[in-house]
Amino acid sequence: MENKDKNTQGQNRRQFIKNSGLAGLATMLPATVVLADVANNKKDDPYINFTRDGLDFSTEDYSKELVSIVESEGIAIDSYSNGGVVEQLEQKMAKILGKEAAVYMPTGTLANHIAVRKLAGDKRRVIVQAESHLYNDSGDCAQTLSGLNLIPLGYGQVDFDLGQIKEVISRTKAGRVKTGIGAISIESPVRRQHNKMFSWENMKEISAYARNEGIGMHLDGARLFNACTHMDKGPKEISDLFDTVYVSLYKDFNAASGAILAGSKGFCKDLYQTRRMFGGSMPNAWPFAAVALKYVDSFLDDYNAALDVAADLFTQLESSGKFRVEYIPGGTNVMKLHVLAGNPAQIRANLKEQNIYLNQPANDFKGFYIKVNPSLLRTTAGKLAAAFLKV
Amino acid sequence: MENKDKNTQGQNRRQFIKNSGLAGLATMLPATVVLADVANNKKDDPYINFTRDGLDFSTEDYSKELVSIVESEGIAIDSYSNGGVVEQLEQKMAKILGKEAAVYMPTGTLANHIAVRKLAGDKRRVIVQAESHLYNDSGDCAQTLSGLNLIPLGYGQVDFDLGQIKEVISRTKAGRVKTGIGAISIESPVRRQHNKMFSWENMKEISAYARNEGIGMHLDGARLFNACTHMDKGPKEISDLFDTVYVSLYKDFNAASGAILAGSKGFCKDLYQTRRMFGGSMPNAWPFAAVALKYVDSFLDDYNAALDVAADLFTQLESSGKFRVEYIPGGTNVMKLHVLAGNPAQIRANLKEQNIYLNQPANDFKGFYIKVNPSLLRTTAGKLAAAFLKV
Amino acid sequence: MENKDKNTQGQNRRQFIKNSGLAGLATMLPATVVLADVANNKKDDPYINFTRDGLDFSTEDYSKELVSIVESEGIAIDSYSNGGVVEQLEQKMAKILGKEAAVYMPTGTLANHIAVRKLAGDKRRVIVQAESHLYNDSGDCAQTLSGLNLIPLGYGQVDFDLGQIKEVISRTKAGRVKTGIGAISIESPVRRQHNKMFSWENMKEISAYARNEGIGMHLDGARLFNACTHMDKGPKEISDLFDTVYVSLYKDFNAASGAILAGSKGFCKDLYQTRRMFGGSMPNAWPFAAVALKYVDSFLDDYNAALDVAADLFTQLESSGKFRVEYIPGGTNVMKLHVLAGNPAQIRANLKEQNIYLNQPANDFKGFYIKVNPSLLRTTAGKLAAAFLKV
Amino acid sequence: MENKDKNTQGQNRRQFIKNSGLAGLATMLPATVVLADVANNKKDDPYINFTRDGLDFSTEDYSKELVSIVESEGIAIDSYSNGGVVEQLEQKMAKILGKEAAVYMPTGTLANHIAVRKLAGDKRRVIVQAESHLYNDSGDCAQTLSGLNLIPLGYGQVDFDLGQIKEVISRTKAGRVKTGIGAISIESPVRRQHNKMFSWENMKEISAYARNEGIGMHLDGARLFNACTHMDKGPKEISDLFDTVYVSLYKDFNAASGAILAGSKGFCKDLYQTRRMFGGSMPNAWPFAAVALKYVDSFLDDYNAALDVAADLFTQLESSGKFRVEYIPGGTNVMKLHVLAGNPAQIRANLKEQNIYLNQPANDFKGFYIKVNPSLLRTTAGKLAAAFLKV
Repeated sequence: MENKDKNTQGQNRRQFIKNSGLAGLATMLPATVVLADVANNKKDDPYINFTRDGLDFSTEDYSKELVSIVESEGIAIDSYSNGGVVEQLEQKMAKILGKEAAVYMPTGTLANHIAVRKLAGDKRRVIVQAESHLYNDSGDCAQTLSGLNLIPLGYGQVDFDLGQIKEVISRTKAGRVKTGIGAISIESPVRRQHNKMFSWENMKEISAYARNEGIGMHLDGARLFNACTHMDKGPKEISDLFDTVYVSLYKDFNAASGAILAGSKGFCKDLYQTRRMFGGSMPNAWPFAAVALKYVDSFLDDYNAALDVAADLFTQLESSGKFRVEYIPGGTNVMKLHVLAGNPAQIRANLKEQNIYLNQPANDFKGFYIKVNPSLLRTTAGKLAAAFLKV
Repeated sequence: MENKDKNTQGQNRRQFIKNSGLAGLATMLPATVVLADVANNKKDDPYINFTRDGLDFSTEDYSKELVSIVESEGIAIDSYSNGGVVEQLEQKMAKILGKEAAVYMPTGTLANHIAVRKLAGDKRRVIVQAESHLYNDSGDCAQTLSGLNLIPLGYGQVDFDLGQIKEVISRTKAGRVKTGIGAISIESPVRRQHNKMFSWENMKEISAYARNEGIGMHLDGARLFNACTHMDKGPKEISDLFDTVYVSLYKDFNAASGAILAGSKGFCKDLYQTRRMFGGSMPNAWPFAAVALKYVDSFLDDYNAALDVAADLFTQLESSGKFRVEYIPGGTNVMKLHVLAGNPAQIRANLKEQNIYLNQPANDFKGFYIKVNPSLLRTTAGKLAAAFLKV
Repeated sequence: MENKDKNTQGQNRRQFIKNSGLAGLATMLPATVVLADVANNKKDDPYINFTRDGLDFSTEDYSKELVSIVESEGIAIDSYSNGGVVEQLEQKMAKILGKEAAVYMPTGTLANHIAVRKLAGDKRRVIVQAESHLYNDSGDCAQTLSGLNLIPLGYGQVDFDLGQIKEVISRTKAGRVKTGIGAISIESPVRRQHNKMFSWENMKEISAYARNEGIGMHLDGARLFNACTHMDKGPKEISDLFDTVYVSLYKDFNAASGAILAGSKGFCKDLYQTRRMFGGSMPNAWPFAAVALKYVDSFLDDYNAALDVAADLFTQLESSGKFRVEYIPGGTNVMKLHVLAGNPAQIRANLKEQNIYLNQPANDFKGFYIKVNPSLLRTTAGKLAAAFLKV
Repeated sequence: MENKDKNTQGQNRRQFIKNSGLAGLATMLPATVVLADVANNKKDDPYINFTRDGLDFSTEDYSKELVSIVESEGIAIDSYSNGGVVEQLEQKMAKILGKEAAVYMPTGTLANHIAVRKLAGDKRRVIVQAESHLYNDSGDCAQTLSGLNLIPLGYGQVDFDLGQIKEVISRTKAGRVKTGIGAISIESPVRRQHNKMFSWENMKEISAYARNEGIGMHLDGARLFNACTHMDKGPKEISDLFDTVYVSLYKDFNAASGAILAGSKGFCKDLYQTRRMFGGSMPNAWPFAAVALKYVDSFLDDYNAALDVAADLFTQLESSGKFRVEYIPGGTNVMKLHVLAGNPAQIRANLKEQNIYLNQPANDFKGFYIKVNPSLLRTTAGKLAAAFLKV
């Protein structure tokens, strides 16, 4: 019975990925795990969120999670964000991303900044997406503190293409004073574009060109692991196109904070010194690294399983005639849930009563932008559907 | 006879300005001066250029010009670019531009840089034209040395409009980290766009909005005086829309180098200290300031007169059937001279023999981009026409 | 019996403070608390350190500490280091330090940097101790990232005096280009000088002068609370001389990381934006803030009690004839423990067996630099003496 | 008769150099030239200054000088400070200084700044003299615009020694965050120390050490050519200790402005781009370069000859019993002229009547700091003595 259900979920998930407009997902990872420790979180109803990329721990659950990790695995203390469990995590992430080394960073803001700062070197122009986090939401850190010239491409777009890169370079070369493009930064999925993915073809072309021109390639892969499922590619395969990769520990891996910046040995050498100059070397980072280290291995399986639950849920909701699900082309963990019958605010309030959280109703359609994450594994599609359809 | 010719020229000039797509030029300045000292330059034929904004002195003529100024007016020496003839020039330019004060700068690059640096203050974003000199040809000075974030608008365009400004501001406010727009810089005429002018209506709207929002307005008016004729506005009328204005001493006013940055007393106070920090306070700037001071008064008249000569020349060239002149809409001192019969390279070589200089033939049409400037006053339209038509 | 012991300790402590060369300690806080939760740490012997400013939690004890706080007080979650328990801590610290506001910072490096960056404003010179953490151990952050000119005074010294400040200002005014002193930063106690304190008289004179001259005053009070006891002054009394004050959450208050920067409302307004630009706004900082919030109230009492234990211990050690204690004039929690008989390395190894930790033997005398902190409250002076004297 | 006078002068000069505390001047350059064009300057009395390093041209004389150069040698125009006479000067200076290349700079401030900026590279600490122009009189350019940490050594001193350098490096290595010493800048002669010279022995030791450690060496040799005479070394011999050398065109070589920065081909490659970014690439620099090019060859001879005139003058003044000359140990072109009888202000006024200029009377003794320069060659020692002694 359960096996049958799994299979159905698998089909749904495949369907979902197809609907997202992505190339076929050849080998599907088996959808397995229900997170053991999630049980801790249950009161009457388990806490389910459609608002985050991860489990969204409470302070209570997070504290208990730390104790649980200490008691099962132990946590080796770090010193100023070096060594101990922080180093364990760095090494694991480097390996997963196919890089020689990795350095813990306190935030993605600093990880992206330090990456382009160092990649750029003496060539102070850095090409970024106009809709990227680095260009819009980082307080102009790279410009203000490192004097980089961030050149935005693709207003209102998810990605840019090689033609646009070449145009910028041509313009740069025509300037009276020689300046150089030192790095290209690509964010994917793009938060400001409902977590849509940068085109794989464009990525490949741009990467090949950049390497030929001696331009550094940086990936803002805060939610890289979400993209892996929807691109049907492993983290390493995507990272291979880039010199440096940032992955958030906070989004997918449930750490209270933290980021990883991976790259070559040469790139990462002494990078903790730069981190410290920025005031980013916390005396202890183990309370973050230890949690990420636990979830990094299971996230892909859990996320795939959660997509199965979601697909099943969507089928049931659509059958009711009260909802319609719209997959976002090129999207990842965000979908549009159209409300065909009923009042969105009321639906949201009802669900909250049952410990299920939705974002505020959307501005651009009647319904919700929802996010699929492993918190769905705390229940079943059937129970979720019942909750949504409860009057 | 000469008077009649003047009148005809006047008509031609008005015709030209009308053709340029500009609003009517109500009060025409009388076209008068033939530069006295140009005589020095004559060998057999006077040196005429269609390539520059000004007279393009040789080192010999420039040196003699200095001696001539010393002997007629005297030149009061400056000390580290302060006082003496430098101060005389600053005061005159401030008055002409309708500003309280002005500061000598060694180059336009530094003038623009210091202007936006100081106007921006703590709000580190500065909106510029994508095609501007500051954005393309200044080695990213404002970004690299002052950590400003220059936001380019209008790729391939001469100007931008208030709607675009508002969009940037709205985007800025939506960022996760608060950043501010500190200044808007407008270049007009735009060198990279064949010296076309930024729309007066857009300028006015943007200026009104910026003042209301507390955003500084800077004019890169390297060739502002050319625009005055074609906008039928005085320097002050245009400058009134801006907090700070840069004017080149090199382009229109024949100084070997130099620039003026004008603004309020508060803005200019101690600005020479900043200039010095940048290494821009030359022990003596009088060899530049003295020449500019001489030509700043006569330029508008001379340029208008040169436009008359050019208009007459164009009529004669078109009558021959061998040339056609195309006025650039919204343009200033640049026109397109189509070659209908004959080989451009040969024509150029022939003219050079007669001490008349053209740019290299254009890439985008058969003919030349030509620039009208007061060097045309060293001869007559008739002699010029003869030179062009000589086989 | 216990009361009698307390009194003796009180006398010893007063004696100690007198020996440190400090003015009389008029009102002594009652020496009371033995930390309840320290019991968790006990195996056979409690963990005692003479190497840190605080308890030096293991990852296990820290995790349990979090659970304990959650269960007793609850921990309100923060969002990107704003609100929740972080805000509670900011408000408490502001009050204790007598400032209008306070902002959480991830590290002291960033707290010091942001303080002098903002205080300095347009006057880019900042006077610091040549032996300060900001000048030596912060990777030149203020110089590299903010372009400040840090002027070091007092090589090999703890402090500087008003005369030296005036000399720098006079030199600055004599420069050809106008520059300004924007801030003076004072670290006290000084880590690189065995936690000795900056002279109170110099502090007062410098502060009065700076305020008159419009120069910002910053206190690097990482270990301010240690100084309070030895200066016989409350945190507010010392902070009153400064515009901004940084206090570490890691050193005295046992948080795994974190810092507080306190100042006026105007100063702190929007400062979290700057923090975010530097990449210092962690999504969650509650695992640090919650622990600091617990210990900030009890630290002064605990530290005073620990000094009592230490004084009693020192008496017993000296009685044995095998040790001599040397108080460092102007010192705080660091003392010199001379070994008169026996081998330091052997003594250290013996103590380690008993879960008591000393630093490596000193280079400049036979013995140890030891630090007194609340971990001493996990045992008694008698047991400690026995451990030291055990062969 | 004239020959005999020359010999006497030669002896006096040698005496002077010996008195300055300098090692013997083995080969004296013949004292020859009386500047031909100085005649232009004569009214009734030639203009003589004891206040500058050079001739101190009036605007009239300078303009005529340009015409004279044009007419005799011709002046090849430069384009944005590249090519033409600017390049001629760069090549000549590179050769004289024994470097592969040289780049024209608008000011010494920019030359020093760009030198240490580029030499430092990623190692952002630069050691400078506490009394240097770069540290005191450049508006903190290197700190503010390039984020360099300038570490001052030797307050109130002319030089520093290798021991001090090693101490800084040791301190730097002990910092918690790795930072590096990228360059050492040495100014000699030192303007703020009455043009005294940095010790040759210290220079050699520091240079050898720096090269071994990979630290760049920069010479601020604004008045290097004055030092050559007093060190009895050619410009190349001194420059050989340094990677980069700045020489002023304004001080010794009579250009109205300008500087040369010389170094290796690799160092100078594309440096004009950096110059342009700083706003330092004037459209035309030939009015400065042409004058410097003329005087660079003759300065050493002229200065030596002027020292002869001065020595003769001093002998005559001392014979009168009304003056005493004090040579500054390690000094160059500055001496102390003690007034034994008479009122300094009155003496100064009398000399001014005769077109001879002295500085304001000294603050620290009764008399004048005087500077010896080639303007003394416009007259004779006898006439000068008569002018000084005239009542």
